Amino acid sequence: MTARPTTYRSAAVIGTGTIALGWIALFAARGLEVRISSTRADARAHVTAALPLYAASLPDGPADPDELAARLVFAPDLAGAVAGVDVVQENAPEDLPLKQRLFAEVAAAAAPDALLLSSTSTLLPDDLGAGLDTPGRVLVGHPFNPPHIVPLVEVVAGRDTDPSTVGAAVEFYRWLGKTPVVLRRAVPGFVANRLQSALLRESIHLVREGVVTVDELDEVVTASIGSRWAVVGPFHAFHLGGGPGGLRHWLEHLGSGLERSWSLLGSPPVDRETVDTILAQADASFGAVPYEELAARRDRGQNAVIAAAARARED
Amino acid sequence: MTARPTTYRSAAVIGTGTIALGWIALFAARGLEVRISSTRADARAHVTAALPLYAASLPDGPADPDELAARLVFAPDLAGAVAGVDVVQENAPEDLPLKQRLFAEVAAAAAPDALLLSSTSTLLPDDLGAGLDTPGRVLVGHPFNPPHIVPLVEVVAGRDTDPSTVGAAVEFYRWLGKTPVVLRRAVPGFVANRLQSALLRESIHLVREGVVTVDELDEVVTASIGSRWAVVGPFHAFHLGGGPGGLRHWLEHLGSGLERSWSLLGSPPVDRETVDTILAQADASFGAVPYEELAARRDRGQNAVIAAAARARED
Repeated sequence: MTARPTTYRSAAVIGTGTIALGWIALFAARGLEVRISSTRADARAHVTAALPLYAASLPDGPADPDELAARLVFAPDLAGAVAGVDVVQENAPEDLPLKQRLFAEVAAAAAPDALLLSSTSTLLPDDLGAGLDTPGRVLVGHPFNPPHIVPLVEVVAGRDTDPSTVGAAVEFYRWLGKTPVVLRRAVPGFVANRLQSALLRESIHLVREGVVTVDELDEVVTASIGSRWAVVGPFHAFHLGGGPGGLRHWLEHLGSGLERSWSLLGSPPVDRETVDTILAQADASFGAVPYEELAARRDRGQNAVIAAAARARED
Repeated sequence: MTARPTTYRSAAVIGTGTIALGWIALFAARGLEVRISSTRADARAHVTAALPLYAASLPDGPADPDELAARLVFAPDLAGAVAGVDVVQENAPEDLPLKQRLFAEVAAAAAPDALLLSSTSTLLPDDLGAGLDTPGRVLVGHPFNPPHIVPLVEVVAGRDTDPSTVGAAVEFYRWLGKTPVVLRRAVPGFVANRLQSALLRESIHLVREGVVTVDELDEVVTASIGSRWAVVGPFHAFHLGGGPGGLRHWLEHLGSGLERSWSLLGSPPVDRETVDTILAQADASFGAVPYEELAARRDRGQNAVIAAAARARED
């Protein structure tokens, strides 16, 4: 394994969907030359039109979209996009054969020490790299939407991935300003989406049961566990919620209570009735506000909250 | 039902544990005379010693503990504490017969239009008020720890509670600066703790399975869904995570994916091995930092995050 660069000059981004656009804006804002590979005939017009929205919500403050655009190169083909770059971040549709074909082409055309990273949220690295001579070369670098704002990147290696490659991926994402967390083994859904899914299941159950509406459920979360978990994770929070005995007291004296509380949680079907109930209530709540405006508000709020939590940690 | 006061002059707080202390500090900071009923012989010394910690972390900024202490009255008995107050907030141990005895005494001694509120997180209002002539008088006003910081109060009424009493409880908590959410029906665990419990179950599963450590799980949450949910609740977040098709696209096209993702979630036992694994990893993470310091950091961070989210919402 050759030495990795400790600074980075160029990255290829495969795709021009929402996730790809977030990476493009962030990579360009960090000074990288960004080589874009897209199947869209109008890729340049599409990215250039979208860039101002992303440039306005970068975590370190707004950037000049023209300055970012000046760092973009629209490659005529995939091999041309990845030749000579330090990093490839793939954001194609969640279609395993498609991604396998892409990575076969990428592995043949990219430099041997280029990092090959996939934004997939549903596919496993061993499957993505299955057809390659060096299957361990492909790693998952799964961002949270929007990738230029949310700090987390879940790094998931394959069975045959060299530990130094994992280290290089972590180093790259840290250099970008992200918070990479390496999973110790690959599981479907990774970690954050599984947790999100667990909370969503109970949310849907409580709405179906008529305990709260969609709007009230959302308000319960933002007014309580959201701000808590922006600052301390669930274990840390339970440690502090158990009184001076901490997590030990919680688990050793209330452990059976935990299992009982789990037995009360719901397993709602996602049937027509459930979907209709949720959509009617969601429409009444935020349905009238344009999508872009809601997204811009979320982005502004999330940048403010992440910055506030970081400042408080440094105090 | 007589008219409720639109401003409040006095409140009785039953108990002097952590939750009670949060209410005491907040009530006093809002200018209420706070009448404290405690079984502790050293209640005055205990509360006076704890007050500076709570005064320092009030959401609107630090208060002078001596000014707060000047608004406290240590009542010789429960009847004396609640006589003539506008509001009673009960924080006794989670023991139903004990709370029933307390509320019988409170209902006999308090003004007929005084709000009778319980901080219970596990008992239902119908059970709390079961022995009273007017069982619907007792409501749950369940705060999140620490009550002077976290905005949410879950308001849960009994079968026989008059809607005007629910309205009065909501009005009181709003006046305090809290975010009351009224449950449409009473369910064990209410809403926020059920959601928290669902996420904790999957967290414990992922740690047991060796996917991440306690520390890494906490970092995944603070770096992703925590700051997201501090700003937008889960339904609102899924609406924005589904692309321009929003929640409708999500539920109608990915609904079966949701059910599949739920089928993959874990149901860990809370056995000796699980507890030992979690405690060993927690000790390695935050175990060496004194409890009070961790709590003070959490409080500082949470106040900062809540204020940042509120400012962003107003922009």
